[in-house]
This record gives sequence, C-alpha cells and structure tokens, in this order.
Amino acid sequence: MPLAPWRSPLARALHRNRAAADARYCQLATVNADGYPSNRTVVFRGFWQESNHLQIITDARSTKLAHLQRQPWGAICWYFRQSREQFRLSGEINVIDHRTPRPDLQQARRQMWQNISDNARAQFLWPDPGVPKADPAAFEVVPDPATIPETFVLLWFNPEQVEHLELRGEPQNRTRYQYEHRTGQWQVEALNP
Amino acid sequence: MPLAPWRSPLARALHRNRAAADARYCQLATVNADGYPSNRTVVFRGFWQESNHLQIITDARSTKLAHLQRQPWGAICWYFRQSREQFRLSGEINVIDHRTPRPDLQQARRQMWQNISDNARAQFLWPDPGVPKADPAAFEVVPDPATIPETFVLLWFNPEQVEHLELRGEPQNRTRYQYEHRTGQWQVEALNP
Repeated sequence: MPLAPWRSPLARALHRNRAAADARYCQLATVNADGYPSNRTVVFRGFWQESNHLQIITDARSTKLAHLQRQPWGAICWYFRQSREQFRLSGEINVIDHRTPRPDLQQARRQMWQNISDNARAQFLWPDPGVPKADPAAFEVVPDPATIPETFVLLWFNPEQVEHLELRGEPQNRTRYQYEHRTGQWQVEALNP
Repeated sequence: MPLAPWRSPLARALHRNRAAADARYCQLATVNADGYPSNRTVVFRGFWQESNHLQIITDARSTKLAHLQRQPWGAICWYFRQSREQFRLSGEINVIDHRTPRPDLQQARRQMWQNISDNARAQFLWPDPGVPKADPAAFEVVPDPATIPETFVLLWFNPEQVEHLELRGEPQNRTRYQYEHRTGQWQVEALNP
C-alpha cells in the first residue's frame, strides 16, 4: 500500500517538533461497554514498515484493551505545540497480543518488545494497574529483553479519516483526508476551520 | 458545593506549567451517534465561580455539539509536559446556548463572550466549519463584544471521576477521585499506575 497523503504533513510536524521529547505523545479516545468515552495519553512508536499503521503499545490489563475488544475504533488527537498544528485521526485498531496466531504479527510484537527501553519493559511486569496501590517493592522488577510477557500488547492503528488543522494560517488551514474503501484511494479536501 | 479534592493538584499543575501558553489546552473525547469516539483539542476557560465546572466554549455548528446532544458524557485528557503529569476527567457536560432559558446561565454565557479575545470571538462569525473552504474574504469579520451570536455555546464540564498520574514518581503516582452520588462525597484512592 502506498503511503497515505497525510503521511507527509505528519512527518513534517514530527520533524518540526523533534526537539520536544513529548512530540510523540498523543491522546487516544476509546468507547467503553456502556457507550461512554475514555481518553488517555499514549506514545507513538513509529509506523510499521511501509504501512500506514501507527504503532502503540499497551498493557493487556488496561481498560483501553477491554474497550477495543468490544469497539475496535479509536480516535487520536495529536497536538504539536511548537508548530501549532493538530492532527485528528480515526480508524480501526488491530490488537496483537500473545494469542495472535499470525507469525508475521508475532514477529512485529517481538521486534517492538526488543526496541523499547528497559523502563518501558518493566511496566509490563508491575502489579495490576488501576487497583489499590501495592507495596513499592513489587515494582522492583528486572525485565528480560528475550522474554515477552503476556501483558505486552502491540496496537496497530489504521486511520481511515485524518484531519489536519494548522492554527498559524489566516484563517487556519484545515484539510481532511478520507479513505474510500470502494476505490482504495484517499480523498483530500480543504475545509473551513 | 465545596471544591473537590482534585482541584488542588490540578491548580498546582496549572501553576507549575503556567509558562507554557498551551498548558490550558486539553483533549476532549465525545461519542458520536454511531457509537464511535471523536477527539479534539479544546481550551480550558477557567472554572465557573466557586463550582467544579470546567468551562469550555464551542461553536453550535461543531460536530462535538451534535455528539453531546445525544451523549452528554465527555472525557478530557490533560497532559502537562513541564511537570510530566496527566489528568483524566470524565463527566457530564451542560450545554448552554442561546435557547437556554435560565437567566443565570445566560449571564454566564454573556460573561464568557465578553471575556474572550476579539480573535476568539471572530471564529463564531466565520463561515460554517467543516465544509469545503470558502473565499478568504468571508473570514474577514469584526465581532461585536455586545452582541452574542447564536453560534456561541458555553459548555460546563462536571467531572465525576478524575485520575491523576504523575510520571515523575518511582513508581508513578496514580490517584483516583470518584464522586459518590449517594453521599455527595469524593472517594480518593491511591492506585497502581
């Protein structure tokens, strides 16, 4: 699949904001079983090879995973403060966990586990998240780069609509990229902000 | 109503990050009519007087307003980059628009209209958002601080659950504040991150 047309403005935003350690932080919204929204910061871990899949890691014990297993659609809002621009991406999320049968997906999961830092790996060995706080000693864990815990989950986010808003325009520039399943093409349109 | 216990850590975060112009930007998630999540950056416009209502302004023509009229629940994710902490707030949103009958709410809406900048006011007179881009001349408008357009909507976000995560802790500190309708009290609990 060729790179989607929104990849180029997103790459430019990442480049312009590269001095900020948190330029790779964005907010992912999901919907819970009762139809209520949920929202949290996640870290963008790059695209999968030549695809348009944004990679995110998460813990199998997190509430967002429970949400995604029922409603696999997510919405990312990504604000770049230095260049003052926002990307809103929505699309389906593929969950790649220890039960995923496809060897190529397991390979992607393994590769991500090996690429992340020891600190990032350690969190997957911590006590269950979101329950009353455990003894601090329970957080003193040493992860093994060669052993992937079942808690480690890779998400592939596949945008089908992307909106790019540049606050610096006069008026602001807003562009919508919409994937058309019928043609396999992206429609691009300049919109009123 | 007394100030909720999460107000103090949130006020501290706003203070610590006050040098950043965008410390008042946060991400608001809503759910659309088909049950899909939607996410965008909004500007925190302060609390309403002595209440726990976060104030946000929006355009009556925006999709989030359509979402809120069906599912009034929202989820805010607010990341403060200088102090490296995140607040996740969820709760119901009151829509205060030109049809709202209560005079005190109209007074709050009028006060907000007068407080915002000319630039912020101008956007409510712009052509319809989200449709193909109009001629630039259509954006050259001069708002009148004395005349509130029907497009101007005030939102009051009333959190019922707030989660505060401090990334700097060892391990990270995560605290949940949960409003109890039965007692009118907030439950506070330290959780595993």
